[in-house]
Amino acid sequence: MPAFYDVISRRRDVRAEFTGEPIDGATLRRILTAAHAAPSVGLSQPWDFIIVEDPAVRKEFREHVLHEREVFREQLSDEEAKRFAGIKIEGILDASVGVVVTYDADRGAPAVLGRHAIADAGTYSVCLAIQNLWLAATAEGIGVGWVSFYREEKLRELVGLPERIRPIAWLCVGPVTHLETVPDLERHRWRDRMPLDTVVHSDRYGRPAELAD
Amino acid sequence: MPAFYDVISRRRDVRAEFTGEPIDGATLRRILTAAHAAPSVGLSQPWDFIIVEDPAVRKEFREHVLHEREVFREQLSDEEAKRFAGIKIEGILDASVGVVVTYDADRGAPAVLGRHAIADAGTYSVCLAIQNLWLAATAEGIGVGWVSFYREEKLRELVGLPERIRPIAWLCVGPVTHLETVPDLERHRWRDRMPLDTVVHSDRYGRPAELAD
Repeated sequence: MPAFYDVISRRRDVRAEFTGEPIDGATLRRILTAAHAAPSVGLSQPWDFIIVEDPAVRKEFREHVLHEREVFREQLSDEEAKRFAGIKIEGILDASVGVVVTYDADRGAPAVLGRHAIADAGTYSVCLAIQNLWLAATAEGIGVGWVSFYREEKLRELVGLPERIRPIAWLCVGPVTHLETVPDLERHRWRDRMPLDTVVHSDRYGRPAELAD
Repeated sequence: MPAFYDVISRRRDVRAEFTGEPIDGATLRRILTAAHAAPSVGLSQPWDFIIVEDPAVRKEFREHVLHEREVFREQLSDEEAKRFAGIKIEGILDASVGVVVTYDADRGAPAVLGRHAIADAGTYSVCLAIQNLWLAATAEGIGVGWVSFYREEKLRELVGLPERIRPIAWLCVGPVTHLETVPDLERHRWRDRMPLDTVVHSDRYGRPAELAD
C-alpha cells in the first residue's frame, strides 16, 4: 500500500486505461467503506452508491454521454474543437463497473445540524465521500473516472432514483493497465495546472500569502 | 506518516481539541499542495484558499456563527435542543488559522470541459480539494473542523470576495491535543453512523447489493 502523499499525487481521472477485468469484491468493499467514512454535515451521511453492472444500462448511458459530447463540441471555437476531438471523455463500457453516487436530502432531516444556512452543504458531503472513494481506489491500484457529460434527469431515470434523490456522479471504476503521470487534459494541452501560490491568499482575497517552502 | 486507510479512519471534524499553537509553514504548504492536487471538472482548478489569521476577522465571524447557532436552535424540538446544547459547533478562535475555501466559476470559462450539463460540477471540484486538504492535515497530525453555521453573504464580505466568487467552507485548522476516535455528533447521540450495506445498491436504487466481506 503506497504512502499517503503518493496516493494524492498518483490519483488520476481515468479514461483509456481500464482493463475491463472484474473488480475484486473485497477490494470494492474497502473502497466503499472509505467513501462511507467521509465527514458529512450533521453526520447525515446523505450518500448512496449504486453499482451498475447491467450492460444495457451502461450502453444506454454511454449513448447519452456521446450525445452530450456533441452538445458541448458545438459550443467550442474551431481551435478548441480540434483539441477536444482527441480527448476521450468516458470509459463507461471499458471499466469493470459504474458507481452512481447520489444525494438524499431527507437523510437526517429536517434538523440537519449545520445545513439550515447553506442548503448545498449536503451535496458537499457527497463530494467528500467521492474523494475518499477515489483516493482509496488509487491506493488499491484501481482506476476511477468521473463522467459529467449527462443530464441528471436521464441518469435518474436509468437507475430508478426517487424524486428526492439527486445524482451527483457517475464513476467508472476498475482495474487499469497503469495510471498516467500527467492529467489527460494537460497532456492534450486543454489546460495547464496552476502554481499553488496563485490560489493562496492572506486574510483577504487578492492579498498574496507568503507560504514557507 | 500513517498508512492510507489509517488516515481515512482517524480523520475527525475537530471542534474542541485545537491547541492554538502556530501551524508550521512547511506543513501548511504540504497540506495546501495536496488540496491543489485534487481533480477538477475540465482541469478548471476553481478553488482559492484564504488563510485567515486576523483576530478581528475571526472574532466577527465567530459572533455571526454563534448567532446562526441560535437560529438553528429555534427550529429544534425541546428534546433535540437539549442534546444540541452540549454540542460545540466551532473552534474558530481556538484553531491556529481559518482557511476559507472558495469557488471561482470563471476559472477556465466559458468552455469548461464537463460542466455544460451540470452547473454544480464546479462546486463539486472544490469539495474534492477540501477532502484532500482534510486528509493531508490528518496525515500530518493537524486537525480540521468545517464550520457551516454562516450566511455566505457575511463570509463574502468578511474576506472581500468579488461577486463571482462563492465561499464554500470555513475550515478551522491547527495542531490538536488528539483526535477523538468517535465523531462528536455520535458521542452526543445526535446521530449514529449507518452500516455500509444500507447505502449500497445493485444496478437500480433500492435493489440490495451483495458485497463480499
